[in-house]
Amino acid sequence: MRLLRPRPLAALLLLCALVTAQAAPPAGEKPLTGFNAEGAARQRALEARFDSQLKRENLRVWMKRMSARPHHVGSPHGRDNAEFMAGLFRSWGYDAQIETFDVLFPTPKVRVLEMTAPERHAARLGEPALREDATSAQASEQLPVYNAYSVDGDVTGQLVYVNYGVPRDYEELERRGIDVRGKIVLARYGGSWRGIKPKVAAERGAVGCLIYSDPRDDGYFQGDVYPKGAWRNEWGAQRGSVADMPVFPGDPLTPGVGSVRGAKRLELKDAPTLTKIPVMPISYGDALPLLRALGGPVAPASWRGALPLTYHLGPGPATVRLKLEFNWDTRPAHNVIARLKGSERPDQWVVRGNHHDAWVNGADDPVSGMVALLEEARAVGELAKTGWRPKRTIVYCAWDAEEPGLIGSTEWAETHADELRRKAVLYLNSDSNGRGFLGVGGSHTLEKFVGEVARDVTDPQKKISVWARARAQRILEGGADERREARERADLRISALGSGSDYTPFLQHLGVASLNIGFGGEDGGGSYHSIYDSFDHYTRFGDPGFDYGVALAQVAGRVTLRFANADTLPFTFGNFADTVSRYVKEVAKLVEDTRQEIVEKNRLITEGTYQAVFDPTQVFVIPREEALPVAPDLTPLQSALARLQESAKNYQAAFDSPGARERLRSAETQARLDEVLMSAERSMTREAGLPRRPWFKHQIYAPGFYTGYGVKTLPGVREAVEQHNWKEAVEQTALAAQTLQQVAAHIDRATALLQGGR
Amino acid sequence: MRLLRPRPLAALLLLCALVTAQAAPPAGEKPLTGFNAEGAARQRALEARFDSQLKRENLRVWMKRMSARPHHVGSPHGRDNAEFMAGLFRSWGYDAQIETFDVLFPTPKVRVLEMTAPERHAARLGEPALREDATSAQASEQLPVYNAYSVDGDVTGQLVYVNYGVPRDYEELERRGIDVRGKIVLARYGGSWRGIKPKVAAERGAVGCLIYSDPRDDGYFQGDVYPKGAWRNEWGAQRGSVADMPVFPGDPLTPGVGSVRGAKRLELKDAPTLTKIPVMPISYGDALPLLRALGGPVAPASWRGALPLTYHLGPGPATVRLKLEFNWDTRPAHNVIARLKGSERPDQWVVRGNHHDAWVNGADDPVSGMVALLEEARAVGELAKTGWRPKRTIVYCAWDAEEPGLIGSTEWAETHADELRRKAVLYLNSDSNGRGFLGVGGSHTLEKFVGEVARDVTDPQKKISVWARARAQRILEGGADERREARERADLRISALGSGSDYTPFLQHLGVASLNIGFGGEDGGGSYHSIYDSFDHYTRFGDPGFDYGVALAQVAGRVTLRFANADTLPFTFGNFADTVSRYVKEVAKLVEDTRQEIVEKNRLITEGTYQAVFDPTQVFVIPREEALPVAPDLTPLQSALARLQESAKNYQAAFDSPGARERLRSAETQARLDEVLMSAERSMTREAGLPRRPWFKHQIYAPGFYTGYGVKTLPGVREAVEQHNWKEAVEQTALAAQTLQQVAAHIDRATALLQGGR
Repeated sequence: MRLLRPRPLAALLLLCALVTAQAAPPAGEKPLTGFNAEGAARQRALEARFDSQLKRENLRVWMKRMSARPHHVGSPHGRDNAEFMAGLFRSWGYDAQIETFDVLFPTPKVRVLEMTAPERHAARLGEPALREDATSAQASEQLPVYNAYSVDGDVTGQLVYVNYGVPRDYEELERRGIDVRGKIVLARYGGSWRGIKPKVAAERGAVGCLIYSDPRDDGYFQGDVYPKGAWRNEWGAQRGSVADMPVFPGDPLTPGVGSVRGAKRLELKDAPTLTKIPVMPISYGDALPLLRALGGPVAPASWRGALPLTYHLGPGPATVRLKLEFNWDTRPAHNVIARLKGSERPDQWVVRGNHHDAWVNGADDPVSGMVALLEEARAVGELAKTGWRPKRTIVYCAWDAEEPGLIGSTEWAETHADELRRKAVLYLNSDSNGRGFLGVGGSHTLEKFVGEVARDVTDPQKKISVWARARAQRILEGGADERREARERADLRISALGSGSDYTPFLQHLGVASLNIGFGGEDGGGSYHSIYDSFDHYTRFGDPGFDYGVALAQVAGRVTLRFANADTLPFTFGNFADTVSRYVKEVAKLVEDTRQEIVEKNRLITEGTYQAVFDPTQVFVIPREEALPVAPDLTPLQSALARLQESAKNYQAAFDSPGARERLRSAETQARLDEVLMSAERSMTREAGLPRRPWFKHQIYAPGFYTGYGVKTLPGVREAVEQHNWKEAVEQTALAAQTLQQVAAHIDRATALLQGGR
Repeated sequence: MRLLRPRPLAALLLLCALVTAQAAPPAGEKPLTGFNAEGAARQRALEARFDSQLKRENLRVWMKRMSARPHHVGSPHGRDNAEFMAGLFRSWGYDAQIETFDVLFPTPKVRVLEMTAPERHAARLGEPALREDATSAQASEQLPVYNAYSVDGDVTGQLVYVNYGVPRDYEELERRGIDVRGKIVLARYGGSWRGIKPKVAAERGAVGCLIYSDPRDDGYFQGDVYPKGAWRNEWGAQRGSVADMPVFPGDPLTPGVGSVRGAKRLELKDAPTLTKIPVMPISYGDALPLLRALGGPVAPASWRGALPLTYHLGPGPATVRLKLEFNWDTRPAHNVIARLKGSERPDQWVVRGNHHDAWVNGADDPVSGMVALLEEARAVGELAKTGWRPKRTIVYCAWDAEEPGLIGSTEWAETHADELRRKAVLYLNSDSNGRGFLGVGGSHTLEKFVGEVARDVTDPQKKISVWARARAQRILEGGADERREARERADLRISALGSGSDYTPFLQHLGVASLNIGFGGEDGGGSYHSIYDSFDHYTRFGDPGFDYGVALAQVAGRVTLRFANADTLPFTFGNFADTVSRYVKEVAKLVEDTRQEIVEKNRLITEGTYQAVFDPTQVFVIPREEALPVAPDLTPLQSALARLQESAKNYQAAFDSPGARERLRSAETQARLDEVLMSAERSMTREAGLPRRPWFKHQIYAPGFYTGYGVKTLPGVREAVEQHNWKEAVEQTALAAQTLQQVAAHIDRATALLQGGR
């Protein structure tokens, strides 16, 4: 359920690089992290054979087949796709199983939205079939437009427009004396993950929530609408889950454990991640009459979308009734798990996944990524048929029930948690894929590695490496600092992962080092989670020639094959320490900025500036003074960082020493080093997890409690400061310092091994 | 013809202040620049009597009368208003004359705009009468929607959307391979003064120009449209002059001389400030079908307005025919000039003006400012009736023909140029006025003075001084630097003047120190230059109680009275030198930034970044490398600045010395000092004027050649750098340095006088 493509690209992004100008040595001589020179040459030869296997036509045929009918979790075509894929994997020589979980998946029974004042108007709540889109008329199998895990409800209230519906927006409303208690809020998509909107609305006392797609964000403001162009049309709406995933993803009834048959389940009424109020997504065609009927103050300039009207805040006179009832059914989620057993280290697993369920036909999301994974797996299978075997076990996964809340992957990860913590060396994810630039997010211990991979794959349009193109984009479009760094730093930074796809249970719950990879940025559009995310749409606007599907298979295949074959797992720690040092600096700056904002706000109040400026014909509530906190002492965090940097440096020095090379000839040392390396990410977790959300155990990366998909790095301390919770900021600073010390100690163990210790 | 209110307020602005917290001494003890302690007390008592005369009701009655019918230059009601005001002035004891000039004023004979492909559609080109607006139905007297000084023409061409139509926009089009040669451009209002749009379009080879009001800029995006709210509705359009005023304003046929009867006139075909191509303004109702019919690439995000469509660039398939013919008539422009002769220094004139002509009914523009001037003059007249006389002569002016091009004021200033250069001590201007914050632009030698005035006038809503409110706004809404300065600097900075109202001939042609004053910022709306700029509109959305009309009379009246009565003209030079030092720094930074941009652009080309990034499915023209210029040596300018700063300091020290106080008891010294002070602004001019526009003689402030109203400070060197004209930049640097040396020498003469020299 990856976000709209044009945005994440700007937000997440990319991979690493070596300095430009220097002529690259011939492929055979280029070093490869984790391999010796001879191994590197062998590996590159293998990859050339892998590349030669890849066929664009397969992607097209499979996409057409898999997106031929709606295939959400529990649907007949979803099951059929799972069986089809299992069959393919088996035909390619994999040990493939369908592993099924029983998961809560509500579908709508009653959906009523009507304006009751100042005039009656019933919402349409439907996406029309289009002649130009062959699958758009499959109404009987399509899930209607709705938000999964909204509670049932029948509420009536005056409407308030709340912009993106994030906490900051409610502070703006407060300034204007507008209270949403007892009201129904109308939020627009964007600015946060959608599930944040009903969560914050409920916290503020609203009784219902509507989320509409403003044409500014993914409609005609961006480009021509479907079917003329790629963008969302008047009646297009965005389905999606609103379960409180920043608390925990997966089946809302089985937090922390697999929802296998017979598992202990919460009662529906006790499920903490269901919304507190009913919520429904609507098209802008349905939002237009509501917005037109709003009175009250004019919305702030940045809140205004692209509809041809004056955006008012309300409350009212527009009054709406929202009635929702769901079938609270349990449905089977079919994960396809296909294994190719490792020849030397079968108990080290390279896990590679993409989801297969969609909201409707889902050609882009998720099939575009899924078919690239299939073609990758087929090519690996072909290699295996020639006698080659990976050293480590490769596990290909096609997840079901990602859309409602990363359920297939989460339940599998929870079910096999102990084994995965012992065996998983990497989780590599993809999701929707399109034409454009390589984007990479993930564990910074893999930054150097994934950059090497990206340098070895050629962009299908430009015939330069995909890293060179990604780097060029950063140079051209980044700010001054990003531009300088892209030119000067040996590696291109990868982004940190928040949430929004299946890496979350692996990375943030289990502490398995993870990567998320995809292409995009030239495939804009507004088909996301609508019936128009179709084969017809994708082959006009996504990646018409499937060139970037093949490029994804090349990048992901290399990651998989190098991890599977490396002598030593290709983790490094210098870039990780460098990135963490930025996070520590950011947090220090956040503390300082937050204190300065409080000082400034208080000053504006006491010097009478608000009072002097505000327009007396408008309501303006002057904010209250806030006590200036003592800044939390970040010294422990900074000391721990210094130690981490030292440990990273020592490891690299030890690894590069002739002695280490000697010692690593011993298979036992090699195996023991792998053991330490693969568990390095685990050392970044704490069993107790984050405050108020113990499921999230990673202490460096987490989805934001109030952003949803958007990442928060050093989340414990960062979010405490953002919430002005100064007591918790002090506690979390200590814990973050502990974590960094723990990671440093872990790295030191690897260093000791290289130096001949045990 | 002052710009839309909400914008200039952000851009220009405000006046000076003393540091906040310190308790002000009682009014009688507060010093007053230009007066001794006793004189200051007397002056303040006079001002209290002045205030007590002001009656809000007069403003309302006069506005209703003057805006009762359309009153553009040459109209019966315009003449009637002139006679009415002359009568008022006389009844208040002024020596009032109507001084008439014969000026070129074209009005439309034929206006045809039709889309000829891909389908036929005729534009409406009219603003409908509204029941809610009593004067909107006076169709027979209303000027239709048009741009004055467009040439006649009958052109047909494919349409290209050019955003604001400024040079930067054409560079963007070039990147996309779009050429406007032979095309008709569609530009939106904003981003520059309107006359720049046809000028740049013609330079680029377009054959016609349409300018429309996008609802994003002054329509429903901003607020409810008229008559529900204040903003421009679907059919509202903006009349206005498109003569090339940055070359020279006034009658296009008599540059540099007064267009008195018998004056030598250019032939129409030789008039350099007429447009080169036909141009017409249209409503967004008329623009909508044109924009909908455009193909080609999607416009860049910042180019997109608030219409419910995807903004494309074209060219075509939309093809339009534009046919315009005008009556190229000469009309009488009636300036009203009213004098109150000075008792001691009758040959020193305080000139105070506002225009009286409108595009249609013009309640806001210009009557709101005009009636404040009238009430100010009435109150001054009342003071005079009690026996008081100003020391210096006060000249009240009601200008005609400002809207077509500052014509009434320019022709008067040109006609009386020699006398004004000898006698004018100040030109004080106002124009439209509304509810909100005091905004002041003008000569920085008056910054300290006008701040003192603003501290003595109370804001009618907040009961704090108007300077305190203006300062609070700057603290709240300014960037970090502006906020800091507003809090810490003794005086609030006034803005530099570009153009857009009647100060231009005085300040920039004659070198008379000038101020432009008005209130606004809480009176938003889109009635500008439409039939809806009416009494009904103004009394709902402008300044319904005329409180800020009275406040304007209080501020302007104080400026006038203090200048009229001061012992020594209240010019100071420290703030001027400080402001010029900022301009010099800005120019140095501009040089450096421009060179850096060239370096960076060349690097992006040579390293292949553009080539790597651009989307191969779109047209993208890689820019050409540009030779890196040698940076002009700014040392002479910096040295001149240092001398200027020194001179300013010396003058203040001399002025504050006991010896000076003694010497100024001599009336002759006093008079000689006044002489030097009043001509200080003249020392900032050069007879040769600016490159390619000799009419503009001021070397510190000028309207931008490619911005129109927007000011360029140190314009010779700044614009040369902006145009990458490096040879001229070197020449202009020398000239700017000469000017600053000349000003310093001038100040030194004043200092010498105070030190007992001659």
